[in-house]
Amino acid sequence: MPSLQNRQFLLAARPTGLVKRGDFELVTVPVGQPGAGEVLVKVQYISLDPAMRGWMNEGRSYIRPVALGEVMRAGGAGRVIASNDPSIAVGDAVTGMTGVQEYALLKASDVVKVDPRQVPLPRYLGLLGMTGMTAYFGLLDVGQPKAGETVVVSAAAGAVGAVAGQIARIKGCRVVGIAGGADKRRYVVDELGFDAAIDYKQEDVRKRLREYCPKGIDIFFDNVGGEILEAALANLARKARVVLCGAISQYNATDSLKGPRNYLSLLVNRARMEGFVVFDYAARYGEAVRAMAGWMAEGKLKAREDVVEGLETFPDTLLKLFRGENFGKLLIKVAND
Amino acid sequence: MPSLQNRQFLLAARPTGLVKRGDFELVTVPVGQPGAGEVLVKVQYISLDPAMRGWMNEGRSYIRPVALGEVMRAGGAGRVIASNDPSIAVGDAVTGMTGVQEYALLKASDVVKVDPRQVPLPRYLGLLGMTGMTAYFGLLDVGQPKAGETVVVSAAAGAVGAVAGQIARIKGCRVVGIAGGADKRRYVVDELGFDAAIDYKQEDVRKRLREYCPKGIDIFFDNVGGEILEAALANLARKARVVLCGAISQYNATDSLKGPRNYLSLLVNRARMEGFVVFDYAARYGEAVRAMAGWMAEGKLKAREDVVEGLETFPDTLLKLFRGENFGKLLIKVAND
Repeated sequence: MPSLQNRQFLLAARPTGLVKRGDFELVTVPVGQPGAGEVLVKVQYISLDPAMRGWMNEGRSYIRPVALGEVMRAGGAGRVIASNDPSIAVGDAVTGMTGVQEYALLKASDVVKVDPRQVPLPRYLGLLGMTGMTAYFGLLDVGQPKAGETVVVSAAAGAVGAVAGQIARIKGCRVVGIAGGADKRRYVVDELGFDAAIDYKQEDVRKRLREYCPKGIDIFFDNVGGEILEAALANLARKARVVLCGAISQYNATDSLKGPRNYLSLLVNRARMEGFVVFDYAARYGEAVRAMAGWMAEGKLKAREDVVEGLETFPDTLLKLFRGENFGKLLIKVAND
Repeated sequence: MPSLQNRQFLLAARPTGLVKRGDFELVTVPVGQPGAGEVLVKVQYISLDPAMRGWMNEGRSYIRPVALGEVMRAGGAGRVIASNDPSIAVGDAVTGMTGVQEYALLKASDVVKVDPRQVPLPRYLGLLGMTGMTAYFGLLDVGQPKAGETVVVSAAAGAVGAVAGQIARIKGCRVVGIAGGADKRRYVVDELGFDAAIDYKQEDVRKRLREYCPKGIDIFFDNVGGEILEAALANLARKARVVLCGAISQYNATDSLKGPRNYLSLLVNRARMEGFVVFDYAARYGEAVRAMAGWMAEGKLKAREDVVEGLETFPDTLLKLFRGENFGKLLIKVAND
């Protein structure tokens, strides 16, 4: 395949505040051939995740930053079109960290074979991918929900939040979502089956949390940070768990981040706030995938994807994520099967 | 004893910012007689604790606020001079929540008999009192130290911090203290045996923490909050535990409290921040007292008291605490034996 050309987005600059088009460079390079133990993947879907903003920053974090001039890191799914490893065949559907590009050369050991006849390919990046794993281990391992407890999820219509809330329901908890806009609020209650939802753009979140959680919040699964985190801290139950999944309201802050001013609520309520990184649970992904696939089959776990067409939309589509304009798991469709 | 008079400090106003003399009223009232199941205690020592500032505020907390016009709440130790309960005899030495006054009428079930021939009475308010219990359960139960880990303690020359750090040493941890002033820094290392100490008034705490904790902080036992908490969060090890014992830098803030701006360090480091309230461990105080008394006897656990004479000094002595001017467990001596 010497004639194949690969369009890819490189990280061109470290963004200040919100990402902008100029932080990336779209280049076209020839597609390489897989070396020993490698496969060449034709990318069909790319996953857009809030964590990508953090990967663009310099400095020590849970994963090394994307280097300037390097292909922007992203999860993706596609078909193997050339293989130099006995474990993977041409035609196999796989997921892996493909990056934001049309073709990805990956180690065979770094991809996961999936079956699009069982579950549509995009869902392997959502419910059965990093998104679902994040919700599963964050809620269950860090949050430790018990039946009858009250769970509040921020960014409840977002990819991770929607799943975390549904799992909490499956585990017998009362679940209250916080989302932006009437459509999302309705979706969370009517489609996902949350017990209640708050539209943070229209409603007083603190007041509503007091109403909907009269005994306080046992688990707050936070994707947002900022004032929403403070509102939840202000209404914790005793021995509450605040699961720090993310803080999308803060990732693009240009002035210094806001810390939760009422963090001493943790002291008064004997509560804990704990962070986690989904990659730590890699050895247990199988367990989560089996559980989630079972709940999907039973109709207890729903997912919604928000698919944007075209690799070239990447910078704008990423902005859509940070503006809260996506509705469901945000993906870019790069190519047909 | 109809002629006995009792001087007592009532809470006269809810303070804004630092407490001041006018927030209390010193009154003299006749001493009452113990009813059935009660004892009358002649108070000898009163314990001064940072938590007292919180008790003066209105609003929901882990304990009801002191009411305006009520005797200011405080732990104390003294002698029983009249008893109307078979379990306590006149002459018994006891500790309990005596309040800031010379004589306290208490339920017999609310006092604990102690033996001043074994251990000096003030120490029952320090190492073997709420101070020691706070350090013991906060460090061991919430912090979960393992031998070889690095523990950092703020307000390390303070009553609780000094004990928490020494227990961490006993458990085989490397211990770094943060204290204000060269004398306290030296005391923490030379007298208490900490591995290192930082004078936050003279040194760059972040820089020193990086030097003294090259593998990061496994446990941060925080009594202080504010910038010191941020400095510790900036240098956490993976799976670190931040034990929220207090936040004395914030208790008297008149503008809104500062939250730790870098709280997402908890996420990146898969760390947790957890609060606790010592009263929850009441059923296990015996275990702690036995352990601490044993370590004291072996010379592994040292204590220092800072005793101020005279009940009438109470408002100024309390200020001394919030200004960090005490050196060791701060007590007021109200009367001789």
